[in-house]
Amino acid sequence: MAKKESGSKKLWGGRFAEATAGSVEAFTASIHYDSRLYKYDIAGSKAHATMLASQGILSKEELQAIVDGLTSIQQDIEAGTFEFRRELEDIHMNIEKALVDRIGPAGAKLHSARSRNDQIALDFKMYLRDQCDILAELLDGIRRAFVLLARKYIGHVMPGYTHLQRAQPVQIAHHMLAYFEMFGRDKERILDCRKRLNLSPLGCAAMAGTGLPIDREQVAEALGFAGVTANSMDTSGDRDFAIEFVSACTLIQLHLSRLSEELVLWSSSEFRFVEIADKFCTGSSIMPQKKNPDIPELIRGKSGRVTGSLMSLITLVKGLPLTYNRDLQEDKEPVFDTVDTVTASVSIMAELLENLKFRTEVMEEATKTGFITATDLADYLVLKDVPFREAHGIVGRAVAYCLGKGCELDQLTMEEMKKFSPIIEEDVFEVLTVDGSVNSRISTGGTGLARVEEALEKAEKLMGISV
Amino acid sequence: MAKKESGSKKLWGGRFAEATAGSVEAFTASIHYDSRLYKYDIAGSKAHATMLASQGILSKEELQAIVDGLTSIQQDIEAGTFEFRRELEDIHMNIEKALVDRIGPAGAKLHSARSRNDQIALDFKMYLRDQCDILAELLDGIRRAFVLLARKYIGHVMPGYTHLQRAQPVQIAHHMLAYFEMFGRDKERILDCRKRLNLSPLGCAAMAGTGLPIDREQVAEALGFAGVTANSMDTSGDRDFAIEFVSACTLIQLHLSRLSEELVLWSSSEFRFVEIADKFCTGSSIMPQKKNPDIPELIRGKSGRVTGSLMSLITLVKGLPLTYNRDLQEDKEPVFDTVDTVTASVSIMAELLENLKFRTEVMEEATKTGFITATDLADYLVLKDVPFREAHGIVGRAVAYCLGKGCELDQLTMEEMKKFSPIIEEDVFEVLTVDGSVNSRISTGGTGLARVEEALEKAEKLMGISV
Amino acid sequence: MAKKESGSKKLWGGRFAEATAGSVEAFTASIHYDSRLYKYDIAGSKAHATMLASQGILSKEELQAIVDGLTSIQQDIEAGTFEFRRELEDIHMNIEKALVDRIGPAGAKLHSARSRNDQIALDFKMYLRDQCDILAELLDGIRRAFVLLARKYIGHVMPGYTHLQRAQPVQIAHHMLAYFEMFGRDKERILDCRKRLNLSPLGCAAMAGTGLPIDREQVAEALGFAGVTANSMDTSGDRDFAIEFVSACTLIQLHLSRLSEELVLWSSSEFRFVEIADKFCTGSSIMPQKKNPDIPELIRGKSGRVTGSLMSLITLVKGLPLTYNRDLQEDKEPVFDTVDTVTASVSIMAELLENLKFRTEVMEEATKTGFITATDLADYLVLKDVPFREAHGIVGRAVAYCLGKGCELDQLTMEEMKKFSPIIEEDVFEVLTVDGSVNSRISTGGTGLARVEEALEKAEKLMGISV
Amino acid sequence: MAKKESGSKKLWGGRFAEATAGSVEAFTASIHYDSRLYKYDIAGSKAHATMLASQGILSKEELQAIVDGLTSIQQDIEAGTFEFRRELEDIHMNIEKALVDRIGPAGAKLHSARSRNDQIALDFKMYLRDQCDILAELLDGIRRAFVLLARKYIGHVMPGYTHLQRAQPVQIAHHMLAYFEMFGRDKERILDCRKRLNLSPLGCAAMAGTGLPIDREQVAEALGFAGVTANSMDTSGDRDFAIEFVSACTLIQLHLSRLSEELVLWSSSEFRFVEIADKFCTGSSIMPQKKNPDIPELIRGKSGRVTGSLMSLITLVKGLPLTYNRDLQEDKEPVFDTVDTVTASVSIMAELLENLKFRTEVMEEATKTGFITATDLADYLVLKDVPFREAHGIVGRAVAYCLGKGCELDQLTMEEMKKFSPIIEEDVFEVLTVDGSVNSRISTGGTGLARVEEALEKAEKLMGISV
Repeated sequence: MAKKESGSKKLWGGRFAEATAGSVEAFTASIHYDSRLYKYDIAGSKAHATMLASQGILSKEELQAIVDGLTSIQQDIEAGTFEFRRELEDIHMNIEKALVDRIGPAGAKLHSARSRNDQIALDFKMYLRDQCDILAELLDGIRRAFVLLARKYIGHVMPGYTHLQRAQPVQIAHHMLAYFEMFGRDKERILDCRKRLNLSPLGCAAMAGTGLPIDREQVAEALGFAGVTANSMDTSGDRDFAIEFVSACTLIQLHLSRLSEELVLWSSSEFRFVEIADKFCTGSSIMPQKKNPDIPELIRGKSGRVTGSLMSLITLVKGLPLTYNRDLQEDKEPVFDTVDTVTASVSIMAELLENLKFRTEVMEEATKTGFITATDLADYLVLKDVPFREAHGIVGRAVAYCLGKGCELDQLTMEEMKKFSPIIEEDVFEVLTVDGSVNSRISTGGTGLARVEEALEKAEKLMGISV
Repeated sequence: MAKKESGSKKLWGGRFAEATAGSVEAFTASIHYDSRLYKYDIAGSKAHATMLASQGILSKEELQAIVDGLTSIQQDIEAGTFEFRRELEDIHMNIEKALVDRIGPAGAKLHSARSRNDQIALDFKMYLRDQCDILAELLDGIRRAFVLLARKYIGHVMPGYTHLQRAQPVQIAHHMLAYFEMFGRDKERILDCRKRLNLSPLGCAAMAGTGLPIDREQVAEALGFAGVTANSMDTSGDRDFAIEFVSACTLIQLHLSRLSEELVLWSSSEFRFVEIADKFCTGSSIMPQKKNPDIPELIRGKSGRVTGSLMSLITLVKGLPLTYNRDLQEDKEPVFDTVDTVTASVSIMAELLENLKFRTEVMEEATKTGFITATDLADYLVLKDVPFREAHGIVGRAVAYCLGKGCELDQLTMEEMKKFSPIIEEDVFEVLTVDGSVNSRISTGGTGLARVEEALEKAEKLMGISV
Repeated sequence: MAKKESGSKKLWGGRFAEATAGSVEAFTASIHYDSRLYKYDIAGSKAHATMLASQGILSKEELQAIVDGLTSIQQDIEAGTFEFRRELEDIHMNIEKALVDRIGPAGAKLHSARSRNDQIALDFKMYLRDQCDILAELLDGIRRAFVLLARKYIGHVMPGYTHLQRAQPVQIAHHMLAYFEMFGRDKERILDCRKRLNLSPLGCAAMAGTGLPIDREQVAEALGFAGVTANSMDTSGDRDFAIEFVSACTLIQLHLSRLSEELVLWSSSEFRFVEIADKFCTGSSIMPQKKNPDIPELIRGKSGRVTGSLMSLITLVKGLPLTYNRDLQEDKEPVFDTVDTVTASVSIMAELLENLKFRTEVMEEATKTGFITATDLADYLVLKDVPFREAHGIVGRAVAYCLGKGCELDQLTMEEMKKFSPIIEEDVFEVLTVDGSVNSRISTGGTGLARVEEALEKAEKLMGISV
Repeated sequence: MAKKESGSKKLWGGRFAEATAGSVEAFTASIHYDSRLYKYDIAGSKAHATMLASQGILSKEELQAIVDGLTSIQQDIEAGTFEFRRELEDIHMNIEKALVDRIGPAGAKLHSARSRNDQIALDFKMYLRDQCDILAELLDGIRRAFVLLARKYIGHVMPGYTHLQRAQPVQIAHHMLAYFEMFGRDKERILDCRKRLNLSPLGCAAMAGTGLPIDREQVAEALGFAGVTANSMDTSGDRDFAIEFVSACTLIQLHLSRLSEELVLWSSSEFRFVEIADKFCTGSSIMPQKKNPDIPELIRGKSGRVTGSLMSLITLVKGLPLTYNRDLQEDKEPVFDTVDTVTASVSIMAELLENLKFRTEVMEEATKTGFITATDLADYLVLKDVPFREAHGIVGRAVAYCLGKGCELDQLTMEEMKKFSPIIEEDVFEVLTVDGSVNSRISTGGTGLARVEEALEKAEKLMGISV
C-alpha cells in the first residue's frame, strides 16, 4: 500500500484526501501566540519521556536522545534561531517535528500515550501556575508601596469621601491601607486559583485515558503538581482554571481602576492633592502647559480590556458539549493579554506610587471646610444620651444654619450652639477639631492614630519591612 | 429653633430645604428588592444593640425594648402584615422607623455608631454567607444525582466525543463522573468565597470608624463571623465579595449550560440517547407531536442572565473612587437574580437527572461505527514498538481504506490488515472491540472499568451514599 | 377514544403521559413578566382574527365574538380584575384560555395559522416599536434641556478639560451642546433600529409558514408595519432587533454615565461648579451635613445594568441552531429592564438638568489659572510664522518658567516674554485673556461665541424652541 | 534661554523636568498597533496641509515639501524600510518626526491647527469607513454563497427544527435563505454605522476648535466625508462609532456562531447531513480516524472574542468625563481585533460554504420519522372546521397512540384514524406526505416551493447572479 495515498502532509493527515487550504492554515494556526508556552511544553515532554522510559515504553537510549533533542530545541528557541512554522499549527507540533528531524524515529515515539488535548492543558496550567506566583509577588510589591506611603504620611490628615463629598477627616495612611487590604484579598484569590489548578492533566490523552501502561503520578510529581486530575473527560474540556484566573485578575484591575480614578482626581487643579512624578506623565501635542496623568488613565482604561477577556472566555465556553472542542483554542489569547495587562499595570503602578508626593498642606486645608466633623457633633450628643436620630436632626439643622450664614460649625458661638441643643457645652469645640475627630475613631479598623499605627505595624511586619 | 425649618421629613433630612421629588423617590428607593434582607437586618440590629448595651451606650431597658420591638417587626414581616413604605427608601429605614413608632426614643438610639454603609454591607454579607451554604448543599445534591446515575449505568458504554465527533468509547458512568468533578470544583469556589467574605463590617460606620466606644468583635462573634474587617475605608466601598460570588456562580451556570447542551443533543431524534421525563418537558402550541427539552434549553439560556449580572457588577465598580458611592446600591439586584437563577437551575436539573433514562442499547450501538477504536489499533502498534507517529499514519491509511470500502476496521481481513502493517497479528481483533477498548484505559482517571469503579466508590463514600 | 388518555391538562398536552412538575411550571412560566405585553397580544389577535375572517377561515359571527371577547379581556386586565395563572405559562395562553372560557369554541379557532413562535415575535416587536418612539421623544426632552441650559449660560466660560486637566477655556453653552450632539446620535440609532424591526412576523407560524390560506400583508398593514418578514425560519429564531435595541440603549446609558460623572465632579467641594436642586439629592444616615448627588451616581451605576443586559442577550443567542429554541424566552427580561432603566434615567436626568444651577463665577475663576491659554500663545507664534513644533516648545519652556516662579503666563513682563521668543510683542496679552482665547476659536464646531450662537440657534430651531 | 532646560526630548516635552521612564514608554506607546493606520494618517495630513496652504498658513513651497515628504514616507512604510520608533509613541509622531527629519522646518508647521485628539479620530474614522465597505462586500459574498446553495438544492427537503426537535419538513433552500436574510440585516447595520461615522473630526483640535483661520469643510470634502462634526468637545471624546461598529460586528459573529453550530451538528455521525471539504477540517494527533469540523468550531468560538471586544469598549467609556481622556487610547486594539476576526470569519465561512455538500438522501430520510407532518393533520382538521385547539388535541392523542404502537401517522389505518376524529377521510394521506406538507406552506415567507422559488429569484437578482 503506497504511502502517498493521502494528499495531506500533516502529522494527523493519514485519512485525508485533500491538502489544507492556505487560508484555513492561517485561520487555524496558533503558533503565533502559543509559542510563548515553549518551555512548559518542553519540560512536560521531558517528564513524559522519562516516565515512558520508566514504564519500558521507551528505551534508555531513546529517552536520552529525546531529552538531548528537546534541550537543543529549547536552546535554539531561546537564542532566537528556531524557525516556527505556521503549517505545523502549534507549539506541540513545531517542537515534535523538529525533534523527529533531529533525532529520528525516537522522536516519533514521544507522543505515545498523550494527545494534544492533555498536552495543551498541561502547558497552559504550568504557565498559569507561574503567572500566579509572579502576580502574587507583584501584588506584594504594590502592597509594600502602600505601606511605605502610609508610614511616610502617618499623622497627616485628608478628607475622607463618600459620594465624592467630603464626609469625615481621615488619615492619609488609613486611606493607603485600604488599598493594602484590597490587593491583599486579590493575592488570596490568586493563590486559591493556583491551588485549584495545580493538578496534572497529562495522561488523560484525548479524553478517555490511555491503554498504555503509564504512571501519571510520576509525571505530576516531576513537574511539581500536587496530584493528578481525577476524570479524563472532565480534564479534556476543562477551562475553569483560565476563567477563574481571569476573574481574579478582573478584580485586581478594578481595584487599580479605582486607585487610578483617585489619582486622576487628586492630580487635577481642583484637588491638587498629589504630584505624580514627571516620568509617569506625558504632555500634549497641542497644549504646551499640560501634564497629564496618563498612566492612571491608561490603567483605568485597561480595566475594559481585562473585563473583555473575561467575557470572551465565558462566551467561549457557554453551551459546549463535553469534552474538547476546537473552540477552546480561543482560550489562550485572552489569558495571555490579561497576564500582560495586569502584570504591567500592577508593577508600573507600584513604581508610580514609590514616586508619588502628597501635598499634605493642601489635603489638610481641605479638611477644614465642609462640616466634616458634623458626625462628631452627633456622636457628642449621643454620648450625652440624646438618641442618635434626634442628634442627627439637631446637627442637620445646625449645618443648615451655618450654610445660610456662610460659616463652619466650629465658628458658631456657644449661644448659637445652645439654640440647637441646650445640652451642648464648651467641651464641644474639642470634638469639632479635625485632629480631635480623626483620633477619636479608635474602633477596630478605624482611622484613629492608635488604630492606624497598629494596622501599619502589622502590615510592615507582614511585608517584612523593618522601620 | 423650630423643628420645621426643613422641608424634608427624611430621617437624614435635617439640612435639606426641599422635599424629595416623587420621581426621585421612586428612582432611588431600594425597598422593593432589599426587603429580602429583613431577617439579616434585624439579626444585625439585635447584635448591635446588645453590644451597645454591654458598652453602656444603651440601658438594659432600652435594649430589651429594642429586641422586643425588632422581634415583633420580624413577626409582622413574616406574617405579611408589615407595610413597607417606599418613601422610607430601604429596609434599614423601614425597620428603624417602625421601631421608633413602636417603642419610642429607645428606637432612635439604635443607629448610634453605625451607618447605612456598614449596615448594608453586614446584611448583604450575611445573606450571601447563607446563600453559599445553600448552594454548596445544592451542588452536593446534583453531584449525588450524577453518582447515582453512574452507579445505575456502570458497565454500559457510549461514544465519547471530541469536536462532537465520535472519538473513543467510554463508560456512561465515566461521563457522569466528569460532571461530578466539575460541580465539585464549583463547590470549592463557593466555599472559598464564603471564607473570604466572612468578616464583619459592622462598626466601620460611614467609612472612618466611630468615636463611640464600641466592640466590633463582640458583634462579629454573635453573628457567627470569623472576625472583623481590618480597614473601615476599604470596608465601606468593598463589593469584591459580590463579584467573587457571581463569578463562581457564572462557572456553575456555564457547567449547567454544557450539560444542557448535551441533554438537548441527546434528546434529539438523531441521537436518541436519553428520555427526559415528560414532566420536565413541554409541548408546542402548534405542533402536536413535539416534546421539547425546555428545561435544559432554559437553563442553557440562563447562562446569559448570570453572565449579564457579572458584567453588570464589574461595570458598576469600574472607576469608582473610594469609599461608598451611591452607584453601589445597584449591587443587589444582579446578585439576587443570580442567586435565584443558579439555585433554581441546580435544583431543577438535579431533579431532572433523577428522572433521566439512558437508552443504553442506542448508545452502545453508536459505539459500533465510526472507527471508534482506531486509537486502540495505534496503541497496539506502539506496544509492538512502532513509533507512535508511524502507527498513527498506518491507522489513518487503514481508516481511509475502510471509508472507501464502506466497512469498519474490525471487518477487515487479516490479509487486508497486513497490507497496512505486517506487524499486525490475530490478537488485534480483541483490541478492536468496544469493550476491549474501554476496559484497556486504566490510566488514573481513565474510562477503564476498574478505574471508573474506583472513582465511583470514592464518590459514593464522599457523598455518603451506601451501596 | 377517551379524552383522559393524557395526564396533562396543558393546551399543548395531547401527547403527554405525565403532568408537569410544579417546580417545572414555576421555572418555565413567563407570565409574571410577559403580561406586560397584553395589549400588543390582543391587538395582534384582533388583526389576525380579522384576516382569518377575510379569508373565510372564521365566520363573521366568530370574528365578532373573538373581538368582543378580547376587548372584554383587555378591559379586565386594565381594571386589574383579570387573574393571570402561572400554570397557563404565558400571556398568549392566559388570554386564549380566557377567551375560550368566555366565548366557547370560536375562541379555540383563533390559534389557527399561527404559533406562539410568531405570536411572541409580533408582541415583542410591537412593544419595542412603541418603546423606540417613547425613547426618541425622551431623548428630545433631554436635548431640549441642554439647549435651554446653553441659552441660559451663553457667554459664560468654564475650563475645558482633557485628561481632567484644565486645557482650554470654553463656553458652558458649548459643553452643553456637546451632549446635545451625543443624544442626537442616540436618537438616530434608536430610529434606525425601529426602521429595521418594523416588519411583521405573524404568519410565519412555528417556522415553516402555514398551509392555511392566510394574508400576512393584511395583518401587517392593520398593525402599522411597513411590510412582512421574508423568511419564516429566519423570523422564528431572530432576536437581532432586541440586541440592536439594547446596544443602542447601552450607548445612551454610557452617555448618561459620562454626564453623571461630570455632575458628581462638579458638585464636589473641590469643583463647586454646580448646585443640584435638593430634591434630586439625598442625605446621609450618619453624617448630617451631607448632600449627596445620588441621582447622577445611580444613573452612572445603572450603566452596569444595561451593559449586563446586553451581555446577557449576546450570551443567550451564541451558538443556538436555527430556529426557535426555548432559550429565547430569556430575551424579554433584559429588554424590559433596559427599557425601564433607560427611560427612567433619561427623564429624571432631564428633570434634574432643568433644575441645575451653574456657579458661573466659580467656573470663570477656574479659567484664570493653569496656563489655560497656552495654546493661544502657540497659535500666536504660528501666525507669526514660527513652525508649530517650535512654538509648542517655546510655550512649554515659558510654562515651566512660570511654574518655577509661581505665576501665570499673562503675569510675565514683556522682557521675560522676549527671552522665550523675540517675536513676541505687546499684542500677545490680548491673546492670553480667557475671553480672547474662547472667542478666537471660530473654526466650525469651535467654542468661539459666534460659532456657539450659530449652533445654539440651529438646535433651538430643531427642537422647536422659540427665543 | 537655553534649550536644555527640559529633561524631556518628547515633541510635547517643553514643560517637563524628567525624562519618561522606560517602562512608562513601553506602557504608553501605541505605535505597535496604530502603525496600521499609516495611510489614513498620511492622507489626512496631506489634506490638512493643502487646506493650510489654501488659507495662507503654509506657503506653496512648504506644502509641496510636505506632500513629497509624506509620499516618500508612505513608500518607505510600504516597502518595509521605515523604522517605527517606540519612543515616538504613536503613528502621528513617528510620521511627523520623519517628516521634519526629511524636509526640515516646513514639517514642523504641519501640526498647526490640529491636535492628536482630532488627528487620531480622523485616522480611526477613515479606517473604519473602509472596513465598513470591505465588510459590506464580504457579507454580500457569504450571502451569494447561500443563494448558490439554495439554487443547487432547491426541491430537496430536510427536517426543520425547533428546540432541536424535528418539527416540520422544510426545503434546504429555505433554510439557506434564512441566513441570506440574517446577513442582509447585518449589512444594513454596517451601512448605517458607516453613514453615521462619515463626518470629519479634523479641525476640532484638542477639544475647543482652533483660532487659526482653517477651513474644515475643505478637508472633509477632500477626504470623502459627507460633512464635518458639529461640536468640537463632543468630537474630541466621541467613540460611539467604534462601539456601534463592534456591536454590529457582534451580531455578525453571533449569526456565524449559529451557522457554525448547525455545521458542527450536521457533520456529526448522528446527523450526517453534510460533508465539509477535507481542506476545511483537521485531524487528531492521537485518533487517526477523526475528521473534525475545526473551522466552524473556531468561528463559533470567536464569537467570544468579538463579544469581549464590545464589552471592553463599553467598560472603557463608562464614567469618563468629557472630553479626551487617555483611557481612550485603549479603543483601537479591540476594534482591530474585531475587524480581523470578523472579516476572516465571514470570508473563510463563505469559502467553506462553496465547498459544502449536503447529503440530500440522508436529510430526506430524516423527514420520514418523528411525526413531522402532524401540524398538517391539525391544519387539515381546521380546514374541516374543527377549532384549532381541538384539532391540536386530536393529533396529540393520535401521536401518543403511534408512539405506543411504534409507527408513524401515515401508517395508521383509516379505521384507526377515525377513532381520533370521525371527520378524517381518505384525502388525509395526501396531507401526511412530506412533499405535500412542504409545498402546502405557501404563506409569504413560507417553505412551499412556489414561495421559495420566488424568494430565491429575488435574491439572485439582488446579488446579480444570472441563472
